[in-house]
Amino acid sequence: MTIRRLQPHGRLSGAVIHGNTVYLAGQVADDPTQNTEGQTADVLRQIDALLKEAGTDKSHLLFCQVFLADIADIAAMNRAWDAWYDRANPPGRATVEAKLVDTKWRVEITGIAALP
Amino acid sequence: MTIRRLQPHGRLSGAVIHGNTVYLAGQVADDPTQNTEGQTADVLRQIDALLKEAGTDKSHLLFCQVFLADIADIAAMNRAWDAWYDRANPPGRATVEAKLVDTKWRVEITGIAALP
Amino acid sequence: MTIRRLQPHGRLSGAVIHGNTVYLAGQVADDPTQNTEGQTADVLRQIDALLKEAGTDKSHLLFCQVFLADIADIAAMNRAWDAWYDRANPPGRATVEAKLVDTKWRVEITGIAALP
Repeated sequence: MTIRRLQPHGRLSGAVIHGNTVYLAGQVADDPTQNTEGQTADVLRQIDALLKEAGTDKSHLLFCQVFLADIADIAAMNRAWDAWYDRANPPGRATVEAKLVDTKWRVEITGIAALP
Repeated sequence: MTIRRLQPHGRLSGAVIHGNTVYLAGQVADDPTQNTEGQTADVLRQIDALLKEAGTDKSHLLFCQVFLADIADIAAMNRAWDAWYDRANPPGRATVEAKLVDTKWRVEITGIAALP
Repeated sequence: MTIRRLQPHGRLSGAVIHGNTVYLAGQVADDPTQNTEGQTADVLRQIDALLKEAGTDKSHLLFCQVFLADIADIAAMNRAWDAWYDRANPPGRATVEAKLVDTKWRVEITGIAALP
C-alpha cells in the first residue's frame, strides 16, 4: 500500500495517508489567543483542511483523541464540536486532560479517517 | 472500504468499523461508584460487548490506550486486566495518567481491534 | 488479514501486526537513569528494533504519540528525535504531558507504522 505525507514541516507531517487510512498529527489552534471554544473551532477547521487535501472529509472520521489543557473546558470544547461534527457519522472519541506544549494552547486533537 | 458505526449516541460513536479494523471510543465504567479494579472490569466488559457487536472479540485486539486518573492505580487496573486479557493474544498497550471528564471515573480505555 | 504479535511478555505485546499495519506498544527507556534526551534515544532504538522485527523501518512510520513526564522536556526530546527521524518521511506526531507508570521514566512513545 502506498504512503503519502501531507504538509511535512520539519520533524513531522500534518497527516499521513496509508492505503485508505489517514492519520492526523495533533492539531492546535493557529490563533492561541482565542478561548477554548474558539481554539477548538480553529482546530476543527484545520482538520477539515487536512481531510480535504487527503481527498476525504469529516463524514469519514473514524476516531478522534482530544487533549484539553483543562478538563473543565469540556463543555466549551463540545460547543465547537457540536457545531461541527457530522450528525449522521460521528467518530469514536476520547477526551482527557493533558498539559500541552505551548501553555496558550487549550486543546489539541488527533484523528484517524478513511478515504472514500 | 465500508464504514460501520456502532452505538452512535449524539456526538460520538461507541465504535467505528473501517474495513477490517475496529476503533473503540474511550470506554468508562457504567457504575463509577466502584473502585479502580471494579471500574476496569466494567470497562473491559463494555469492550467485550462492542467487539462482539462488531463481529470480533478480545483475541483480535491490536492496541489499547489506558488512561488512569491516578497512575498509582496501575496495580488495581492490572488485576482486572490480568483476569481478562487473552493469554495467547495480548494487544500492545500504553498506560499513562490523565484527568478524566468525570472526577468519579478512575480509568478510561480506547482500543483498536481486527475483524476475524 | 493475518495478525502477528511480536515480543509478547505477559499482559501485552511489544508490537502487533495486522495486515500491512504495525501497532507499537508504549516504549520506555531500558535505562531510566538517563536524562530525557538519552531516554528518548533509547526509546527510538527500541522502536527501530521492533520495526525491524516487523519487517519495516522508521521511513514507514505513520504516527507517533509522545508522552512526556514533564512537557518542559520537549526540547530535549526533540533533540533525540531530530537526530533520528527520516528527513524524507516524517510521521504525524502529537506530544503531551502525562505522568508515566515509573516515576523515573521521562518519556513514553507509541506508534503506528506500515509494512513496505
